[in-house]
Amino acid sequence: MMASIKGVPICKACCATNNNHRHCYYYSKQVGLSESGSRNLLNLRVQNKWECRLGGVLTKTQTATTPVEENDKPSVDGNGETQITETRRFHRDLQSLPRPLSAIDLSSSLSDGSKVRVAYQGLPGAYSEAAALRAYPECETVPCDEFEAVFKAVELWLVDKAVLPIENSVGGSIHRNYDLLLFHRLHIVGEVQVVVNHCLLGLPGVRKEELKRVLSHPQALDQCEMTLNKLGVTKVSTNDSAGAAQITAAERVRDTGAIASVRAAEIYGLDVLAERIQDDTDNITRFLILAREPIIPGSDRPHKTSIVFSLEEGPGVLFKALAVFALRNINLSKIESRPQRYRPLRIVDDSNKGSAKYFDYLFYVDFEASMAEPRAQYALAHLQEIAKFLRVLGCYPIDTTL
Amino acid sequence: MMASIKGVPICKACCATNNNHRHCYYYSKQVGLSESGSRNLLNLRVQNKWECRLGGVLTKTQTATTPVEENDKPSVDGNGETQITETRRFHRDLQSLPRPLSAIDLSSSLSDGSKVRVAYQGLPGAYSEAAALRAYPECETVPCDEFEAVFKAVELWLVDKAVLPIENSVGGSIHRNYDLLLFHRLHIVGEVQVVVNHCLLGLPGVRKEELKRVLSHPQALDQCEMTLNKLGVTKVSTNDSAGAAQITAAERVRDTGAIASVRAAEIYGLDVLAERIQDDTDNITRFLILAREPIIPGSDRPHKTSIVFSLEEGPGVLFKALAVFALRNINLSKIESRPQRYRPLRIVDDSNKGSAKYFDYLFYVDFEASMAEPRAQYALAHLQEIAKFLRVLGCYPIDTTL
Repeated sequence: MMASIKGVPICKACCATNNNHRHCYYYSKQVGLSESGSRNLLNLRVQNKWECRLGGVLTKTQTATTPVEENDKPSVDGNGETQITETRRFHRDLQSLPRPLSAIDLSSSLSDGSKVRVAYQGLPGAYSEAAALRAYPECETVPCDEFEAVFKAVELWLVDKAVLPIENSVGGSIHRNYDLLLFHRLHIVGEVQVVVNHCLLGLPGVRKEELKRVLSHPQALDQCEMTLNKLGVTKVSTNDSAGAAQITAAERVRDTGAIASVRAAEIYGLDVLAERIQDDTDNITRFLILAREPIIPGSDRPHKTSIVFSLEEGPGVLFKALAVFALRNINLSKIESRPQRYRPLRIVDDSNKGSAKYFDYLFYVDFEASMAEPRAQYALAHLQEIAKFLRVLGCYPIDTTL
Repeated sequence: MMASIKGVPICKACCATNNNHRHCYYYSKQVGLSESGSRNLLNLRVQNKWECRLGGVLTKTQTATTPVEENDKPSVDGNGETQITETRRFHRDLQSLPRPLSAIDLSSSLSDGSKVRVAYQGLPGAYSEAAALRAYPECETVPCDEFEAVFKAVELWLVDKAVLPIENSVGGSIHRNYDLLLFHRLHIVGEVQVVVNHCLLGLPGVRKEELKRVLSHPQALDQCEMTLNKLGVTKVSTNDSAGAAQITAAERVRDTGAIASVRAAEIYGLDVLAERIQDDTDNITRFLILAREPIIPGSDRPHKTSIVFSLEEGPGVLFKALAVFALRNINLSKIESRPQRYRPLRIVDDSNKGSAKYFDYLFYVDFEASMAEPRAQYALAHLQEIAKFLRVLGCYPIDTTL
């Protein structure tokens, strides 16, 4: 189902700057995780730039046959340590590489019979991992320590897909992750909505009344405020909820619990002391599935298309932009403006050229039509007349399971 | 400038459930803050309901003369401990109470000469406190442990105003705080934009190269990833950045630093080892100023109006809603849709009636016109024809300082 607990979390940033990974386990001193814990990290020597061109794997003029380094694919040695070397290059036919899935190919195995590998940010047991497993139930999940590394993992063909949380019903849209979509050239090929089920976890046999402190990400602690207040416990912040479960299991102190998922309890050998402890019962996170290639939209299922555009500022300009959809009876499922006048964005646009651009505003719109429909094509052509900048992030089947 | 470091942080939730405040200092065990630290918390016995009617201070039929408990105003004893008792009621004329400010009255003293008291979520040195001091430079700032307590503090006349972060240029809109605006009957009377300046803080005399671990809120740690990676330090999550500075000062370990504001350095006696260490230099948070009464919009400065509304679902409905502004040449500075079909919202609407409502979508719109202008009045009357629900959150001068 997933790589393994000790298997290959990808750490882009620290590997790029040093190799001791001291900061990879945020809680190392408290929980006694030694620096040797870093041996499980995939050593991904990438440059900290959006224009990634390591070993020619991803170039601006990528063609059907791409020069690939054999060792860009991680090889795990006996200690679980992985290395990328920049020697021994060869050209490999793209046919032998994992191929992009089509809309009707949301299965868990590739055409060559191997499992789909899906990168996510966080530790095993994270909600992002749950999203990956909902999209591809038999996939191999690959934990990454940060979102940038998730993108790189797909771009460098280390994995086939990525999952990216993009909005939460309580927290709102995650602008930072929209930025990452614009910095990179991955395509949205699906969406998954996950109902957040915060559980109170403890060591086996512990009763919840015994708990004196509870660990989790501050947002999870906030979302479970009433339950925690009733218990009268001390709240301790950690970097993520799955990490809190990991720490609880490692510390083995009976009065310490964690807020995390049921799956985190299974992975770290903890008991679920209480389920659905969040104050706001309907807490849903929407994740995007990303791939190197767009899917070919089918006509068998309802699709949506996600776009980003900017406009000249002024009264009525947005109204005109939305007219391109209203005039063609296309429904919008999301619209969001984002003031951007104080910072340039380094964007890779549809022409595949990267540049730093200033915008007054960016607009994020999801509309309920497939790019295979003429009305969607006409609407986008019309919008192009008005917009200063326009990028189609992807067209994908709507998640109708909730 | 502010109440004091040891002064009155307001803790609603734990006071409502128990009095030992064990969970108020999230990091107590690690930093050795004893439970007696809780003596500084304002003991605010409020019910955990949006319909707050403690001692008749805020009723649904509030009129010009309101029954008020003398002791709803906190009285601080020698230990900094405060108590509210529910006896000794009397009627006090509203004239003797702090009065709402008008648009041109963004000063720091009330008509009776006393200082404006402004509640914020967090600890002294938090960015919210900086926002309060930008709006009211001479005000007395009152820390609260959570956002709900910030609202209650204004509703119960314990303070005059509140500051509430509503969106960040990197993190996006904070839906949870929009919810709080809908649950309560406070009015937006101003906005403040604060440039986030993350600083690396350490004990006096420490050089940044000596640091081995750095504490802060996970978002701040994320936003300063590159600097921290260069230093090769361990990142440790805390509940807020000012809290990280507090812990660093309390621990007195030379290899531990914090990411927080310059002001936090001053308050907790730390050195600023580096300024503006965030990866994304233009990181701006927008705060709202809230009060019990709306302001009377002036015509001397440009104003904006913030509204929330819902629509029937279907193609073109949003287009029609936005037409009410476009047809009157009113510019929008913000629009955001929020799918809401899975959860009811308990809303206090303009008729001052509270009820649980289901919406398909909520829309948050800020438009650049004052409610004093006929075109704004006409636009809202027109929108009312289309919307299933509409609430004006406030009309206030635009912050044009950035």
